[in-house]
Amino acid sequence: MSKRVAVIDLGSNSARMAIFERTSRFGFFILREYKVKVRLGEGAYDKGGFLQDEAMDNVLYAFSEFKYFLSIYKVGKVLCTGTSALRDAPNSNLFINRVKKELGLNLRVISGDMEAFYGGIAALNLLSPLDEATTIDIGGGSTELAKIKNGKIVDIISLNIGTVRLKELFFDKGDMEGALKFAQDIIANIPSHFISKDIIAIGGSLRAISGAIMQLQNHPIRLVHNFTYKYNDYSNLINKIATDKEFDLKTISIKKDRFDTIKQGAMIFSLVVKKLEAKMIYTSGVGIREGVFLTNLLRPNLKSKDLIKIPQEHKISFPKGFNPSLRSIQDRFAKRDNSITTKYVKALFEILHPLHEINGGYLDELIIASKLYNIGRSIGFYSENAHSGYLVKNALNYGYTHQQKALIAAIIEYQGKSINSLGEFENLLPNIMVVRWLSFLLGLASALSLSPNISFEFASNTLYIKGAKNFFMLKNEIKKLIKPAIFAISFE
Amino acid sequence: MSKRVAVIDLGSNSARMAIFERTSRFGFFILREYKVKVRLGEGAYDKGGFLQDEAMDNVLYAFSEFKYFLSIYKVGKVLCTGTSALRDAPNSNLFINRVKKELGLNLRVISGDMEAFYGGIAALNLLSPLDEATTIDIGGGSTELAKIKNGKIVDIISLNIGTVRLKELFFDKGDMEGALKFAQDIIANIPSHFISKDIIAIGGSLRAISGAIMQLQNHPIRLVHNFTYKYNDYSNLINKIATDKEFDLKTISIKKDRFDTIKQGAMIFSLVVKKLEAKMIYTSGVGIREGVFLTNLLRPNLKSKDLIKIPQEHKISFPKGFNPSLRSIQDRFAKRDNSITTKYVKALFEILHPLHEINGGYLDELIIASKLYNIGRSIGFYSENAHSGYLVKNALNYGYTHQQKALIAAIIEYQGKSINSLGEFENLLPNIMVVRWLSFLLGLASALSLSPNISFEFASNTLYIKGAKNFFMLKNEIKKLIKPAIFAISFE
Repeated sequence: MSKRVAVIDLGSNSARMAIFERTSRFGFFILREYKVKVRLGEGAYDKGGFLQDEAMDNVLYAFSEFKYFLSIYKVGKVLCTGTSALRDAPNSNLFINRVKKELGLNLRVISGDMEAFYGGIAALNLLSPLDEATTIDIGGGSTELAKIKNGKIVDIISLNIGTVRLKELFFDKGDMEGALKFAQDIIANIPSHFISKDIIAIGGSLRAISGAIMQLQNHPIRLVHNFTYKYNDYSNLINKIATDKEFDLKTISIKKDRFDTIKQGAMIFSLVVKKLEAKMIYTSGVGIREGVFLTNLLRPNLKSKDLIKIPQEHKISFPKGFNPSLRSIQDRFAKRDNSITTKYVKALFEILHPLHEINGGYLDELIIASKLYNIGRSIGFYSENAHSGYLVKNALNYGYTHQQKALIAAIIEYQGKSINSLGEFENLLPNIMVVRWLSFLLGLASALSLSPNISFEFASNTLYIKGAKNFFMLKNEIKKLIKPAIFAISFE
Repeated sequence: MSKRVAVIDLGSNSARMAIFERTSRFGFFILREYKVKVRLGEGAYDKGGFLQDEAMDNVLYAFSEFKYFLSIYKVGKVLCTGTSALRDAPNSNLFINRVKKELGLNLRVISGDMEAFYGGIAALNLLSPLDEATTIDIGGGSTELAKIKNGKIVDIISLNIGTVRLKELFFDKGDMEGALKFAQDIIANIPSHFISKDIIAIGGSLRAISGAIMQLQNHPIRLVHNFTYKYNDYSNLINKIATDKEFDLKTISIKKDRFDTIKQGAMIFSLVVKKLEAKMIYTSGVGIREGVFLTNLLRPNLKSKDLIKIPQEHKISFPKGFNPSLRSIQDRFAKRDNSITTKYVKALFEILHPLHEINGGYLDELIIASKLYNIGRSIGFYSENAHSGYLVKNALNYGYTHQQKALIAAIIEYQGKSINSLGEFENLLPNIMVVRWLSFLLGLASALSLSPNISFEFASNTLYIKGAKNFFMLKNEIKKLIKPAIFAISFE
């Protein structure tokens, strides 16, 4: 597979392109995203789905701009998919041929089931794991659901309701009652096995709502991906967005170019949440584009025709324990191998357990921290802990909750320094003693990593460190660490 | 020259090692620094300069730890220098032979003049330019000065006063009067052509004082390098540190391991500043190690024996207009060529000048911003402007003032968004209209960079953009920019 792969996704509302950069076999990150509101569905819903000339021209202009970026970034492979508006359009072939002829792009129209499947694949592989959940992807023309259970997609469904569709068929005519009834009727048909207390929210409208909630909370992490909230805490707000004509969207931080479809998005969302009896919302920054990319990355030999029959029969996942963000951060920023530090944090966590008594689950975050604590060095040595923390908070996107990211960053940033308050991250972090201990353990392991053959013993409230007696700098570093409890350290 | 080069510098107080990573021919950054307080001068000043056994052992332990890191980071070249304590020591050869025999390191003792010269070379090439200035590098055993004029070192001098020396000879015996007299007598001999209103402060003691002042000011940039202050504003503080026995160092943010020599450092500093009639202090994060590295990098064929006669006769500088930090940031983080954006910011700055009337000097920062505005993409696409700004603030170390770094970062971070307040950077930035304009111009140029052949015209309060009529996404992006003044934009 090429180093850089682009996925173009042409919806009813906007055309989007994501450029994925692979940093190793399965490690990757998103280098660029482009979004153009082409409104391909515009004017079509009242006209039997026929794509209108101006809308088609807009798409062609936008695609030619996409192509320019493909050359700028030397993208080796382009996967180009079209969804609801093209599925609906009797004249889609004419348009697809124009795209092929004028731009040389192979635009592949995918079914609603495949669209749901790709969203599910993205959520399964790139969100922090959930035992059971249902994804909802609200688009301009359609809404897709995928039911996830025990790491697999167990069912998918595509509904012909979407924001632009509702807008054009009802809202633009002032018929909110009609919109509600139309949506309710379709949503009533969702089979009951999609019911789930955990919902994964995909798509621009739901991301915009999550973004507004993050702003209201002063949430200290920027990325919307994996942001979680209790639906009940914000159901009033979401209902207001959906139905209150007086509600001023400018009072919450929703971008202007969302104003015209956010009401419809909120309406569909609230109805689906009710139908699914959902409680917790997990925001997904990933969706169809990531699903298409992952399918290509992880199952390059899988033929489309085999995939589309019963897509959920195909297992599309990373090797066990593999995290593509962790890998790609290491690929991009690591300047040295940290395996000795990782070995020592594990040993120290265990041997000092009688002293710290920290829940063993936190060892996971400590281990990730030990892999990434010095990546900030690639920005520069001064304040390298702060740089490493910055990279964790801003680039460890996939597979970790915001709580995990905040804890990994805090362990790295403090690293044995004194901690008086956890600042704006307090709500995401465990209690301060846990952070003190974990950061101390990392600081200690990092100083000791100078010598590969150290062993530990803990007795009579003393940590015996064996095999580092003649290390001068190492012992100096350890003296500077703030111990989170009273105990002695002795070098033997 | 190797990709990674280490410079070890053995002073009277500490042994330090810096690992430089070259990212291209002359582009580089510091990957790692190590500092161990070995106190080689300890106990020597009262004993005819003879190095003591324990001190020598400590250095050997520390050096063997340095060697471990040389292998971890695959350092290809090591330059190892010793200064004052070794110059003074009758038994230095014995020690140098031990270092050679036990560790295979060639420790080269350099003269006070060479030490002053290396500090001057580092300051000349890596600080923001000054027409005339004198560097002061206060070490444990000696203090070096270099007079800089019109981009050249015109004279150098080395004085046998240093922090550890003063401490051991006087302070430890409670004889502050004696210390003062000793220092005054030596400083009185500095020739008057070293007098300069601008002082470049090198070395750990002076960096610690600058760091404390930054903390007092809540200075919003982390790096001490290139931090500037008026001496008079802090002369009371510095005198207090030097002579007030009651003054509690814990009340200012000076690190514990500096407590024992900061008084001596402050005393020498205040006396030299007085002698030189200095007004402004420019803090240097660079010194002898960078000087040694640069001399090797820029004049690899220069023989030591030619250099040491009259070192200031040798021109050691980067090609004109070259900045090693800018280059190394581009080498490390740039994902594409930005030359079209740079071309457009220049053209737009000029053609819209009747409207913005901004001082032409600010075009420099706008141009740097246009080269770096999208480097944050290497961290990730989401919030990439913030990432780019972070990298500018934390990695554009050499050659720019803090004001310049803050402005370049602000232009990039705002990029045509609305700006209501400049926040914590206000004191470093020009007035808000300048920031609005420059950030708007970058946003505009960045959107236009999609097409390489655009030309501009400005007439009747309208900016005519020629050659981008059929660009859909581009025009969409431009619509989102907040114009800093009322004028029209028309595509032709």
